[in-house]
Amino acid sequence: MPESPRAGATAPEAAAEDATKLSPEAFRMAFRNHPAGVAVITSDDGTGPVAMTATSVISVSATPPLIVFSASAMSSSTPTLRRSSSVVVHLLTADELPLAQRAATSGIDRFAGIAWHQLSTGEPVFTEASMWLRCRIVDRIDAGMATVFVAEALQVHSAGEEAADRQPLVYQNRTWHRLNAASAVLL
Amino acid sequence: MPESPRAGATAPEAAAEDATKLSPEAFRMAFRNHPAGVAVITSDDGTGPVAMTATSVISVSATPPLIVFSASAMSSSTPTLRRSSSVVVHLLTADELPLAQRAATSGIDRFAGIAWHQLSTGEPVFTEASMWLRCRIVDRIDAGMATVFVAEALQVHSAGEEAADRQPLVYQNRTWHRLNAASAVLL
Repeated sequence: MPESPRAGATAPEAAAEDATKLSPEAFRMAFRNHPAGVAVITSDDGTGPVAMTATSVISVSATPPLIVFSASAMSSSTPTLRRSSSVVVHLLTADELPLAQRAATSGIDRFAGIAWHQLSTGEPVFTEASMWLRCRIVDRIDAGMATVFVAEALQVHSAGEEAADRQPLVYQNRTWHRLNAASAVLL
Repeated sequence: MPESPRAGATAPEAAAEDATKLSPEAFRMAFRNHPAGVAVITSDDGTGPVAMTATSVISVSATPPLIVFSASAMSSSTPTLRRSSSVVVHLLTADELPLAQRAATSGIDRFAGIAWHQLSTGEPVFTEASMWLRCRIVDRIDAGMATVFVAEALQVHSAGEEAADRQPLVYQNRTWHRLNAASAVLL
């Protein structure tokens, strides 16, 4: 790939500013291989529960406990998330892949036929999920075709196996992966 | 873990607002198991090159191509990153683990004894790195003990093996992992 950012500019009307733009395709290709943990984010602004699979959840600060995640304008859940003051972020293990697939499927009722309940604070939670955090939205930044949310974790729920025994789910290059002793790099 | 966010509040001076705070320890424990791809971020504001290993790089929008990453106030690179108008984000494979370890080690010259050069635009780049993006900082948000950066990708460099053959590096629970066919979840 050429090092000059201007090498791709062919349209005669492209101004100097536009000529430095990277194509969405080249950008997607680069990031397709960048791995990420998998979360399902739920909320309800009073218009009904929404659930969205996200590979963009990062921890940014422990004091106070803050996370960041993004939601594409293309996601059907984004309008509700933008109006919500709080969310639940479910952090998934490999065994919870069906939940990730469900919350990434368009045109279905993502809450049908699966156990979920509402917390006393109003957020929907998938009852069998092994780990989730309830978070308060503290900042929202428009970023191109997406919204970046900064949220403060208020509550952690952890169930089932010991944390050290969790085999987390990873998404990379359109493939789901499981982390365990076999995937560890031997130093 | 108790569902009530107030369960952990014991300090008598804790106001209602403070009583809902999650402890940094409980938050770290929850996120320790959330996997992430690994990047090394470099910049130079004119005071010398800095390099920092980051597990917080996410892609948030393709049009325009935007990424988000965070830098802790504890990182020695953060002051330079905050003053920089652009950065290089190296996305690492498992074979590049030594670079991740180098850029996460305190008290060393992270550029000593390794090939690096300056782009014509001024950013330092690790010459042998297989994939990197040059990015312009477009937004900076203070978030607790961290700074969250929004950056526009201007240029992608990709070398070596085909993208499909890359075995990316993942960090989770203080362990490095390699993604490949063996780690894939069979559907």
